[in-house]
Amino acid sequence: MEEALSHRVGPDFRIADVDPTSTPGFEWDKEDWETEFHEHDDELDELQSKLYANARAETPGTGGLLLVLQGMDTAGKGGVVRNVFQAFDPELLEIATFGKPTPEERSHDFLWRIRPHEPAVGQIAIFDRSHYEDVLIQRVHQMAPAEEIERRYGAIVEFERDMANRGIRIIKVMLHISKDFQKENLLERLEDPEKYWKYNPGDLDEREHWVEYMEAYETALRRTSTDSAPWYCIPGDRKKYARMAVKYLVLDALRSMDLEWPEADFDVEAELERARKA
Amino acid sequence: MEEALSHRVGPDFRIADVDPTSTPGFEWDKEDWETEFHEHDDELDELQSKLYANARAETPGTGGLLLVLQGMDTAGKGGVVRNVFQAFDPELLEIATFGKPTPEERSHDFLWRIRPHEPAVGQIAIFDRSHYEDVLIQRVHQMAPAEEIERRYGAIVEFERDMANRGIRIIKVMLHISKDFQKENLLERLEDPEKYWKYNPGDLDEREHWVEYMEAYETALRRTSTDSAPWYCIPGDRKKYARMAVKYLVLDALRSMDLEWPEADFDVEAELERARKA
Repeated sequence: MEEALSHRVGPDFRIADVDPTSTPGFEWDKEDWETEFHEHDDELDELQSKLYANARAETPGTGGLLLVLQGMDTAGKGGVVRNVFQAFDPELLEIATFGKPTPEERSHDFLWRIRPHEPAVGQIAIFDRSHYEDVLIQRVHQMAPAEEIERRYGAIVEFERDMANRGIRIIKVMLHISKDFQKENLLERLEDPEKYWKYNPGDLDEREHWVEYMEAYETALRRTSTDSAPWYCIPGDRKKYARMAVKYLVLDALRSMDLEWPEADFDVEAELERARKA
Repeated sequence: MEEALSHRVGPDFRIADVDPTSTPGFEWDKEDWETEFHEHDDELDELQSKLYANARAETPGTGGLLLVLQGMDTAGKGGVVRNVFQAFDPELLEIATFGKPTPEERSHDFLWRIRPHEPAVGQIAIFDRSHYEDVLIQRVHQMAPAEEIERRYGAIVEFERDMANRGIRIIKVMLHISKDFQKENLLERLEDPEKYWKYNPGDLDEREHWVEYMEAYETALRRTSTDSAPWYCIPGDRKKYARMAVKYLVLDALRSMDLEWPEADFDVEAELERARKA
């Protein structure tokens, strides 16, 4: 699914050019899509183990991976985490969910609550929402002055560049759904008592700001999509497609690390001899 | 696999009575074992969602779950985490791995580094190793005076009772392998370059203390297996069996919570009306 890479955000990015229902490179409704979805699971598993093994062995140059997930309510962020990362060992994943900031968090710089979750070497980390909320919802509702929002784009680029400089690959994904698809999703939550808990009346209020949100996303993605921390605007109305695409981006990033199993840091023959007698 | 419950540790527990190769209630080598292994995956998924939903809805009486995993090196703790918890949403799991304490951790009471990882209401938490290391390795190597080890059994019982009192179900599992099986596992690591990174020459030194470790485990399990935080000594030589058994214990604990989907805390009809127009 190399087409996933084609969703990369460049300097001329316009969100209106991305059709949320499109599925380039994938027949999202084909019968055996699950086979394709799981095609590289063993490889992903091995890549994760290799990454972790090299961190433990302190192999110079070992990096980490960060996936940032953003999207409007009901865009399917949780489903991506759930389905894409099933291929990995949960013990070796670091998943941070960023909700509404607490009063303490608000009393610090916007990156204060994010920094402790920076992936360590050897780690695969996921941000379900992120520091981008501070240039999205905060811009739409003017919760910070325009100059401060402006400053944040630069601060984000620097923050991510520093992470990249210590070997962290960064993939940023906006799950781009249509306003109609969100409506379907919200109605689904209201029509199924098993989903009431996912529904929040405030979600409907936010819908009224759809256009401003799209503007805020467009600006944020354009201003912060860099070579070391690119954005991908993934069509989100076909959930299977979005999951396939994110999975491919993760696979591609891990492959690009050219990971090998670390060498033994002990005398293998001598240890074999000892072990046979032990 | 209700037989898993039969491994519960009582006051007369003797570790020598548990055959690490036994597999009561399960033909561990049957062809379609995977079907049985995944039989309750949908139920587990739903139970986890219900638990989380009730915590979000602040339903009174909502609890949490803690699984403590202990075992000798190569006992398969990582494999249990990996395989059993694949049925769950990784975003809603809290997995804490307790390695060798840092100097800072050693300068505090032994529970200091554990407490921040107590599961919150709605959470499913796993401890890969735990506070029990402080009455196992520390006892075997006399890293703490005998009176201090003695004090810790009581402190652990109290710590776990407090957790149970705020609704946390606690399952403690010792994956009990034979000394021969450990040898096989260590040799496997030494014979496969992809597994060198898992091998640590210190593991062979620890093997020399096998008998003392079994004594330390027997005492710890007997002294700290309570109604609210029972130990299960699970035969570990057949990995599939151990995974099946742990999975059943988790299922059983979640079922015992009698979870229902929370009620809506908003006017469903009014919201449906709004949503249709939005």
